[in-house]
Amino acid sequence: MNAPVITFLSDFGLDDWFVGVVHGVMLEVCPTTKIVDVTHAIPPGDVARASFVLEAAAPDFPAGTIHAAVVDPGVGTQRRGLAVRAHGQLFVGPDNGVLEWAFQDPAAEIRSLTDARYFREPVSRTFHGRDVFGPVAAHLARGVELATLGPPVTDPVRAPRRPATAVPGLVLGQVMLVDRFGNALTNVTAELLARGFPGADESQLEIELCGRRIRGLSRSYGDSPVGQLVALIGSSGRLEVAQVGGHAASRLGAGLGDPVTVRRVDQAR
Amino acid sequence: MNAPVITFLSDFGLDDWFVGVVHGVMLEVCPTTKIVDVTHAIPPGDVARASFVLEAAAPDFPAGTIHAAVVDPGVGTQRRGLAVRAHGQLFVGPDNGVLEWAFQDPAAEIRSLTDARYFREPVSRTFHGRDVFGPVAAHLARGVELATLGPPVTDPVRAPRRPATAVPGLVLGQVMLVDRFGNALTNVTAELLARGFPGADESQLEIELCGRRIRGLSRSYGDSPVGQLVALIGSSGRLEVAQVGGHAASRLGAGLGDPVTVRRVDQAR
Amino acid sequence: MNAPVITFLSDFGLDDWFVGVVHGVMLEVCPTTKIVDVTHAIPPGDVARASFVLEAAAPDFPAGTIHAAVVDPGVGTQRRGLAVRAHGQLFVGPDNGVLEWAFQDPAAEIRSLTDARYFREPVSRTFHGRDVFGPVAAHLARGVELATLGPPVTDPVRAPRRPATAVPGLVLGQVMLVDRFGNALTNVTAELLARGFPGADESQLEIELCGRRIRGLSRSYGDSPVGQLVALIGSSGRLEVAQVGGHAASRLGAGLGDPVTVRRVDQAR
Repeated sequence: MNAPVITFLSDFGLDDWFVGVVHGVMLEVCPTTKIVDVTHAIPPGDVARASFVLEAAAPDFPAGTIHAAVVDPGVGTQRRGLAVRAHGQLFVGPDNGVLEWAFQDPAAEIRSLTDARYFREPVSRTFHGRDVFGPVAAHLARGVELATLGPPVTDPVRAPRRPATAVPGLVLGQVMLVDRFGNALTNVTAELLARGFPGADESQLEIELCGRRIRGLSRSYGDSPVGQLVALIGSSGRLEVAQVGGHAASRLGAGLGDPVTVRRVDQAR
Repeated sequence: MNAPVITFLSDFGLDDWFVGVVHGVMLEVCPTTKIVDVTHAIPPGDVARASFVLEAAAPDFPAGTIHAAVVDPGVGTQRRGLAVRAHGQLFVGPDNGVLEWAFQDPAAEIRSLTDARYFREPVSRTFHGRDVFGPVAAHLARGVELATLGPPVTDPVRAPRRPATAVPGLVLGQVMLVDRFGNALTNVTAELLARGFPGADESQLEIELCGRRIRGLSRSYGDSPVGQLVALIGSSGRLEVAQVGGHAASRLGAGLGDPVTVRRVDQAR
Repeated sequence: MNAPVITFLSDFGLDDWFVGVVHGVMLEVCPTTKIVDVTHAIPPGDVARASFVLEAAAPDFPAGTIHAAVVDPGVGTQRRGLAVRAHGQLFVGPDNGVLEWAFQDPAAEIRSLTDARYFREPVSRTFHGRDVFGPVAAHLARGVELATLGPPVTDPVRAPRRPATAVPGLVLGQVMLVDRFGNALTNVTAELLARGFPGADESQLEIELCGRRIRGLSRSYGDSPVGQLVALIGSSGRLEVAQVGGHAASRLGAGLGDPVTVRRVDQAR
């Protein structure tokens, strides 16, 4: 019987020793787990980005996976630590919104981390990845019950999110992240497009970003000539704008929060 | 009985969640494998560099290792996915030349990835690292037979390579990669030097790169004074030019494709 | 029975294949170990930084952990390779001071790596991470006895260190490292502060760095308003200077070697 995978997401970077130390602590508590690093390149303290990355990544992991998300500018203050069961997985992190995706499961069960038996002693005031979240995640991987970690929580801190919206014939969203390939990922999901344009063909849609209009949805990055801007539904089910063989966000000057609009072509002009 | 190691090479970078998700998928299929990241810093779409890195790295891994190489600008188009048995190891990746080193084994057995039982469903059009290559590599680690993955392939896409050449008394090659230490690695192998200069002593060779001539081959980086340019046979068996305690490529302005010439000293001047 | 964890620290970076290859070699020798990367972003040849990072990271790992520290500008020269038992852990690396923290254990047992049975053959002159230190670390993980690796060593190369000093009422140290968050970590330990200021309250201390004076020690980064400079004892037990939500080192222009002074407030002005 293999212990479940623990994923680890943080703003620690890879230049110091912080990530390695957390791995060591997790393996000390649960030697049979495997730790998967999601990324540690979240900009320091950028809870919103970490929250989006967790939302994009977590659905691709199997049921029972434990996600430790440690972007924690409030470490050592009164902010709570949380563990959550949601979407068939487990989540551990500070109570600052980084676990927002877990809270979106109406059946989410949330606990405050208060039982120090599952911490590394002594608990520092500056490194709860090592002393609280890492050990708790590893105890969960060992089979410790969520309910034993601490009392239920009903008022977690929520991440402020401006959701994409759909009215018939119009979908409005925004850029959530630019990935390594320069693709501008938005918060417009495939489901939302289906709701906004019932029965529409993908070729009838027009996507506008930074003043640039793109006709139709492509199926892949490589189906169009190099240099062309394309819109498509990316691998996490969200509308994204890409440039074939290039960096769409640099070309368009697109960044976090920029509005994206989707219309029907026959209405657009 | 341990599952074989899977190595993973890509252009995904470490800033997003793509590498982590592929790890998760691989471990879901084969929980007992260990995944070794070769590098994920291949520039986006740079198949040639990925191909060279795979060639440099793979020989150091034991027989039976499975290499997943995912630099895949044509993802979602008609390009095939391949699995190859060669050099006593297994290789998985897109049919774009990234697996060139495997094809150089005359006994290479190549299969097209057509059997969807070994894919992650549904297969996206944009992320075959997650949906095809990762799962297939993990199934191979579980012991799935190469031949069951799909039909034989005899015409894989080959990477264009300008090989180094040797005539008696002269070897001509080129820079293939500048590594982190600033060493300029070439495609001139130790075997080629032996062929070009039969019976010659290493001290009789003269290496020319970017107009700079270096006498003799050093045995190590540290045998000469700091600041000196040296030529030596590096750890993957190729001629490289290094600066002791410095960055040879920056000093010489050397980069990919620059010609390197090796002569016998007594002929050179 | 699980094999102990091997940690791996180097200046290899993550852009080439060197780290991956060492992982492969370690797993070939000891398939049941788990390898934790401390960092591979040590600047090329920066033994002093690697030594400090090892000292900061190692105490957080459990007894029996094996640390491989490969920052090795003298690879291939006459410099020895070492393995050390110290602080209840094992350390492997070149004899250039990178293992300094291990030597600070008065009970340290040091061996020279001479028994080629534990090397990867043939041993190159340029990559002892792959050919010597990696394999030796993995053999230790398999249970090979330290004493079998080679003869005792009593004169290891020591890292030059300017220790922090305490006289009653005054502690003098220096900046050892700026971490990803911009925090300036010093060599002033909590123990040294207790020795320099017996019975003093933390609020009575004044820390001076780069001409800036900070009153008192904070308990956490987040207890003060954003933008404020704070001094605190960090997670590895050392005095550090941080800016809440910012980058203290950039703000102060602080870097490696800058002096830090701690006084009692009532004496300071």
